[in-house]
Amino acid sequence: MESDFIDWLRRRLPAHPNLRVGIGDDAAILNLSRTDGCVVTTDTLTDQVDFQLDKCDPCRAGRKALAVNLSDLAAMAAKPVAVTVSLVLPRSGGRELAKSFFLGMLSLAEEYDIAIAGGDTNSWDAPAAITITAIGEVAEKGPWLRSGGKVGDKILVTGSFGGSILAKHFDFSPRVNEALRLNESYCVHAAIDVSDGLSLDLSRLAHESNCGAEIGLDRIPISRDAHRIASDGKSPLEHALADGEDFELILAVPRDEAKRMLDDQPLPVPLTEIGSLIDRRGLWQQTDGQNQEPIIPIGWEHTLD
Amino acid sequence: MESDFIDWLRRRLPAHPNLRVGIGDDAAILNLSRTDGCVVTTDTLTDQVDFQLDKCDPCRAGRKALAVNLSDLAAMAAKPVAVTVSLVLPRSGGRELAKSFFLGMLSLAEEYDIAIAGGDTNSWDAPAAITITAIGEVAEKGPWLRSGGKVGDKILVTGSFGGSILAKHFDFSPRVNEALRLNESYCVHAAIDVSDGLSLDLSRLAHESNCGAEIGLDRIPISRDAHRIASDGKSPLEHALADGEDFELILAVPRDEAKRMLDDQPLPVPLTEIGSLIDRRGLWQQTDGQNQEPIIPIGWEHTLD
Repeated sequence: MESDFIDWLRRRLPAHPNLRVGIGDDAAILNLSRTDGCVVTTDTLTDQVDFQLDKCDPCRAGRKALAVNLSDLAAMAAKPVAVTVSLVLPRSGGRELAKSFFLGMLSLAEEYDIAIAGGDTNSWDAPAAITITAIGEVAEKGPWLRSGGKVGDKILVTGSFGGSILAKHFDFSPRVNEALRLNESYCVHAAIDVSDGLSLDLSRLAHESNCGAEIGLDRIPISRDAHRIASDGKSPLEHALADGEDFELILAVPRDEAKRMLDDQPLPVPLTEIGSLIDRRGLWQQTDGQNQEPIIPIGWEHTLD
Repeated sequence: MESDFIDWLRRRLPAHPNLRVGIGDDAAILNLSRTDGCVVTTDTLTDQVDFQLDKCDPCRAGRKALAVNLSDLAAMAAKPVAVTVSLVLPRSGGRELAKSFFLGMLSLAEEYDIAIAGGDTNSWDAPAAITITAIGEVAEKGPWLRSGGKVGDKILVTGSFGGSILAKHFDFSPRVNEALRLNESYCVHAAIDVSDGLSLDLSRLAHESNCGAEIGLDRIPISRDAHRIASDGKSPLEHALADGEDFELILAVPRDEAKRMLDDQPLPVPLTEIGSLIDRRGLWQQTDGQNQEPIIPIGWEHTLD
């Protein structure tokens, strides 16, 4: 990293109890509270794919890059500890862009009490990309894995879905505190965060748990922005099932525990039951009759050519 | 990450004792042996800056991306535990490129017994970039920081310097085992790895240790490739001082301990004393007379416009 930029960053990063050694050495050293629960996740966001720097404030792009990683930690019921940040920057204007990315991250990092442990900056003749690696610690009753779901588990979701492209994909609150709160007080078998689309991410959870899932389409909590965006020809429900970047949590919860959670509603955001894990593989509409209708999981599919 | 690619990768990654949960969930979970010594470093390598994909085997680029991160861990006297890998890939041919990058990493990861814990792949209309975050653990007598040097310490280096562009910048062995061996048996006050150039990285270590450094220019171990490349007008010594990407270690060692290390020569690679840390700030030629000549630290300076 450029020495002037390190100095700029060091001035903005107070000493943090999670860090034994912070920015400026060959590596950072973290303080953890246990040896068997160090959770690590990484995500890269790129210009013109995850944000458009010609249209958006780069602070929001920086915030988003951190928030998507925190969402992954939340899906494991992990408490964030520290992050590293690696930037590739276009040669022209790279310094100001780097500062804006960091300023966007810093406010979110402060909100969640996360240390920025280190990073790397690179210039090249191409657009910007932000890679963040987030390190957390499994909460006492964690972790939540995708694979822990069981037939008969109720499927609960936080918040509402669809239309995130209008604003939420930048401004969402990663469900970190919600996950830790639930992990502390309830038994959750499995979890995933919705980055690629409710139907697609639910089908992933079900698949990893060796189950299928049936959901009541009339139970899906549809966001106002899904209604707002629906003039494009797709229904609000279709948006809710497929849009992605909602960064809500899908939880597989034992039946009695689900009832308790739904009665308690312990979060600032609503918890909604949308269906159950079932024996039959695939994703299905929940109906009263015997003929289940399949749902094709749709969402953001990562493809490599 | 694309599901087919995850499957390909999972088949190549055996279960590893360092991993409680590996690739395929929202995050990975590591097993560490202590709570106060989790070392983290990250580095991004980009096409046309750190490697030229139109000229080199992408396996070598993947290997290099991992090796530079391991070199940073070595400079802290940290034992590598696991890495995450985030790729941005050009849309055309991205899948084969990703496989080659990983194949290059996998052999090195195996050699150093490191778990590949997780990753991310992204496609875009731009060149490739590889970001690796390496997580290690401080060895029992570690860590080595840049800031631990003291006036009077001898400056020792591993290996030789210069001309790495001919081959070594791809094929170097990160000095992980050497660092752990030295850390176990000797007292080392400070260390840095030479990524940007011997003179520049030495001046960084001296600066962080609130010292200056004087070196004997006739003591610098100059590599054969520095001689080979010197037909370009710069001398082999100039190449050795400024070329960068040698990925050798610079160590600040108490005088008596330095003598013991030099007598023992405990590494498969030579240890050479090149000078001392001194009271006077800056980088200086070691002379018998009283007039010290300054050395201008030259190397790869990261710049942001």
